[in-house]
Amino acid sequence: MLSNNNIKITDQFWLNYINLVKTEVIPYQWKALNDRLPDTEPSHAIENFRIAAGEKEGKFYGMVFQDSDVAKWLEAVAYILEDEPNVELEKTADEVIDLIGRSQQPDGYINTYYTIKEPDKRWTNLRDNHELYCAGHLIEAAVAYYKTTGKRRFLDIMCRYADYIYHVFGNGVGQISGYPGHQEIELALLKLYEVTNDVKYLNLSKYFIDQRGKEPHYFDIEKEKRGEKLPYWYEYGYKYSQSHLPVKEQTEAVGHAVRAVYMYTAMADLAKKTKDEQLKVVCEKLWNNVTQKQMYITAGIGSSEYGESFTFDYDLPNDTSYTETCASVGLVFWGRKMLDLQIDRKYADVMERALYNGTISGMDLDGKKFFYVNPLEVWPKASKLDHNKKHVKPVRQKWFNCACCPPNLARMIGSIGHYVYSNDSSNIFTHLYIGNDSEIVLENQKVHLSQETNYPWTGEVKITVNPELEKEFTIAFRIPGWCDHVVVKVNGEEINLEGIVKKGYVYLTRIWNKGNTIELSFEMKVKCIRANPKVRENIGKLALQRGPIIYCIEEIDNGENLPSIYLARDSELRAKYEEDLLGGIVTITADAYRLNEETWGEELYLSQLPERKKVEIKAIPYYAWCNRDPGEMLVWINEEQ
Amino acid sequence: MLSNNNIKITDQFWLNYINLVKTEVIPYQWKALNDRLPDTEPSHAIENFRIAAGEKEGKFYGMVFQDSDVAKWLEAVAYILEDEPNVELEKTADEVIDLIGRSQQPDGYINTYYTIKEPDKRWTNLRDNHELYCAGHLIEAAVAYYKTTGKRRFLDIMCRYADYIYHVFGNGVGQISGYPGHQEIELALLKLYEVTNDVKYLNLSKYFIDQRGKEPHYFDIEKEKRGEKLPYWYEYGYKYSQSHLPVKEQTEAVGHAVRAVYMYTAMADLAKKTKDEQLKVVCEKLWNNVTQKQMYITAGIGSSEYGESFTFDYDLPNDTSYTETCASVGLVFWGRKMLDLQIDRKYADVMERALYNGTISGMDLDGKKFFYVNPLEVWPKASKLDHNKKHVKPVRQKWFNCACCPPNLARMIGSIGHYVYSNDSSNIFTHLYIGNDSEIVLENQKVHLSQETNYPWTGEVKITVNPELEKEFTIAFRIPGWCDHVVVKVNGEEINLEGIVKKGYVYLTRIWNKGNTIELSFEMKVKCIRANPKVRENIGKLALQRGPIIYCIEEIDNGENLPSIYLARDSELRAKYEEDLLGGIVTITADAYRLNEETWGEELYLSQLPERKKVEIKAIPYYAWCNRDPGEMLVWINEEQ
Repeated sequence: MLSNNNIKITDQFWLNYINLVKTEVIPYQWKALNDRLPDTEPSHAIENFRIAAGEKEGKFYGMVFQDSDVAKWLEAVAYILEDEPNVELEKTADEVIDLIGRSQQPDGYINTYYTIKEPDKRWTNLRDNHELYCAGHLIEAAVAYYKTTGKRRFLDIMCRYADYIYHVFGNGVGQISGYPGHQEIELALLKLYEVTNDVKYLNLSKYFIDQRGKEPHYFDIEKEKRGEKLPYWYEYGYKYSQSHLPVKEQTEAVGHAVRAVYMYTAMADLAKKTKDEQLKVVCEKLWNNVTQKQMYITAGIGSSEYGESFTFDYDLPNDTSYTETCASVGLVFWGRKMLDLQIDRKYADVMERALYNGTISGMDLDGKKFFYVNPLEVWPKASKLDHNKKHVKPVRQKWFNCACCPPNLARMIGSIGHYVYSNDSSNIFTHLYIGNDSEIVLENQKVHLSQETNYPWTGEVKITVNPELEKEFTIAFRIPGWCDHVVVKVNGEEINLEGIVKKGYVYLTRIWNKGNTIELSFEMKVKCIRANPKVRENIGKLALQRGPIIYCIEEIDNGENLPSIYLARDSELRAKYEEDLLGGIVTITADAYRLNEETWGEELYLSQLPERKKVEIKAIPYYAWCNRDPGEMLVWINEEQ
Repeated sequence: MLSNNNIKITDQFWLNYINLVKTEVIPYQWKALNDRLPDTEPSHAIENFRIAAGEKEGKFYGMVFQDSDVAKWLEAVAYILEDEPNVELEKTADEVIDLIGRSQQPDGYINTYYTIKEPDKRWTNLRDNHELYCAGHLIEAAVAYYKTTGKRRFLDIMCRYADYIYHVFGNGVGQISGYPGHQEIELALLKLYEVTNDVKYLNLSKYFIDQRGKEPHYFDIEKEKRGEKLPYWYEYGYKYSQSHLPVKEQTEAVGHAVRAVYMYTAMADLAKKTKDEQLKVVCEKLWNNVTQKQMYITAGIGSSEYGESFTFDYDLPNDTSYTETCASVGLVFWGRKMLDLQIDRKYADVMERALYNGTISGMDLDGKKFFYVNPLEVWPKASKLDHNKKHVKPVRQKWFNCACCPPNLARMIGSIGHYVYSNDSSNIFTHLYIGNDSEIVLENQKVHLSQETNYPWTGEVKITVNPELEKEFTIAFRIPGWCDHVVVKVNGEEINLEGIVKKGYVYLTRIWNKGNTIELSFEMKVKCIRANPKVRENIGKLALQRGPIIYCIEEIDNGENLPSIYLARDSELRAKYEEDLLGGIVTITADAYRLNEETWGEELYLSQLPERKKVEIKAIPYYAWCNRDPGEMLVWINEEQ
């Protein structure tokens, strides 16, 4: 059965993750939301809604954005139901939705923190208190749920809330000319606009984007009204929430990385929907800044724990990075919207980089434990004893008090199908190589596509095309940036690519018949990747990559003190599929040497070279690290110079 | 004229620093203490004493340990007066001493914070509030002033205070069985014991050392009495003040580095004075831990800004270190006391390493600006934009709100002569090579020594011996750890060193006559130093050293992005004395290559090696960095592997 969104994932790699979301993450989170987990701090999120609905006595408990946990859970549920019906789960979701509805205030307002705790303080601290952020997540969930189930209940609730927000915010008399401290509602309103076609929501999103960072600064006005005297905690000021400048004047990614990419996602979507060329240029600049100057090779973003934030160009420390799972998930969202603005493989390359590396690294292979922070170098002793590395957990944690990452991963994985293709009236664009059955609606017809691949372990992809009618249209597909050589066959016959490749996409235009096949063969060699020499941390080092997969070395395979290992110059790089290791992965082995600690002695400093010994190193995919005995991990390996 | 301490520095290198202390640091600090500096936060330190003496109305202002600034100033003044009389300065000092005397309470207590602000709260927060610390510094100053001037006034004041403290602390009924949160009084009391011969002070010092860290923990008892509920701010608990364990059970340096080395200094002195073999073993263990596992090549100590503290073995990050000037000064104090326990060059080597590198780097060549933090790698952009590197100032600062480092440097420089020699009844030990005229009293006679050298720029030293009587005694001198080859001549005749070298010291035992000469010639080649491969930060890197001087490269000589420079394998290392550069220094030039940023392009990650270009690098002594245009600085340079 195909889903409403017309894609059914059949891919071995991703099905595994989707199943984890179904069988582990969603049930586990449901227990968490309902405080049914032993040895864990209660979430109280569902209880907050009951209290806000007047059905229970009690106090609000949790983070000010606790409601968003419920929203993200519902959104993930929607995607999972899209993949496969589940009557019981849908019933539970319906009940939660009803509860949310009952917590809605007469004017349409929904927020358990303010409703329970400070009912007369609504909208008095947009900078810190996440009301619009929670609204955004609820709207996203409502849209997803509506698209999957066709049920309007949740959507109606959220339209009512959005209408109320539309009424509250603006530059009119009596309106609040503010915007959220944590962006999210902007992208959600655009989704709401898509399903409702109500231009109010588009305009409200645009209002929040346009208003942001204007002087006099709304957060200053608001702060003065609250009588707050203390300086803002973030030493770089409103950069934290990307409100230091009007959005269209921003050229560099700054501040809290998740806020940033959520905003950029909205901006790209808005630029598309409003045909705003200027905004498109801003998006492009920011994209280039992030991906050419502030992104880790794993597609992790956010170099600093302080403010969970971007720092500055080429500042990419491996062992103290923040690189939050949510931020890389946000980068996937953003990349997808950039592709809607322009078909260029650079967007899909980053999306793929994030999907196979810095996002799923956030979850263990059992779907039971999670990283918030995804460092590229881990020394467990330092995590324990060096205050600056406290945030770099050497093992995944069960859940988090601030539980943003697991449900964010769940909704990304649940909606993985949304990232594979896009289309316009006569072109189908293939961005990702993920096994699936799909139905795509072009102007004049429907096309059924079936993709088979063993990606990311091999570069062979077979697409079977089944158009409803024999008509001319185009199927374009991306040659991944990591691939140096590709062979394309249509119905078994090799195609000359000259003149049909544009911005990394091969455009195959022809009359397609039922049962036509496209076979792609992407050369998938192990590559030694070096960073731009402006990245000081990585000078003299390399990272191993094969296909979209970034590799790392772990202590369990390679012993202690991983930085003392040097990959030998011109070493053969041996790739091998190991079925029984870490759920089935391709490992890489290579010749290396390491500095000999034993023969050095007790001295700290000597005028001699440390002795070397030959070793073989074994690397595994980064995403799969820390699924065996915990220990050191390293992505950027020293290289013989 | 020889001072009471029998040494007159004639050394060009150190005279320059002594003169800066005389002409810049002491006058400047005097202005600071009296709030006569424009554009600077007032110190209020002298004013606090006036208020405490009841001669002025006003409130206490400043840090809780503000009194110690006055104490350190007086101590530095004492050393400077020892070097050269100065009637006016001595008069000023006498007036301050009188003021301190007038602030003394009827029971002997001296502390302006408590006297003015919380007179009934004395001794209620030993953990945080530095009363005993301030007492210690005042005692040190009093001892120094007495030794220089022979005047008893200050010493008497402090003996009265010390007698009162002796009465307050102890395990008797009604006594406080506590000890200071910031060690300092322990070492000061031992100095007081030396000049007074009053065993009370020895016993009180021993009490503080022995009591420390015992269970039930005094800081817990005290905290409960204060009704404090919050957990202690330092996440590693009482390690912060080395009170996590009884002192004799400590084997690793932890916590606040300055507190640690002040305590270790006292412990070593106490071990000597009480012939405590067990304590000596503890000192030795801690010395080895610090110098073999936790010390930077500059003799900087304290890897972490958090708690200004030690972290753990081999954790020596170059760009986020704390390496406080005061901590290296404290390491000099400690090394000197270790030499009293045992003549072994390893102590003097570290002392020398600190004196020529990580201490004086704290002051600019004009004596006007100071570093608190002495990093080994500086990227000014990161200092500005990376919150984790905020404490790493890329330029020296005028003075500090918490003004510990400049006066600590001043008292170290002022007393540099105290570190050159030590002796027992028949042996003179030469630890440092610093030009001086000295008179040393052995059991049966006085010996005049005159040392001439151009150290640290050349390894030639000439010592002229003038004993009062023609008698047999021993002159021992250290062969520095950095020296591979030494030629020793007595009266022009080369000496065979076989059998007369012990723990790095050459022992020359003979009947010395007036006018005898010892000529030492230490081979002083440029050396490439590597760190123990357990120091992850320094793998693949080298540091340049010549004689005791550690080198660094600066942006002004070598351009931006210093980490992209690789020293070529087997490059010639060219040393050259440059008279007009930075007050006269030996520079080192060498062949290197650097990664070419221009030819790399815009991409962050590519499967290619960055291109290289040949360059010559120029290195200068670390202590002299940041005396020209500010910019990047690097000690550990990449090395072609």
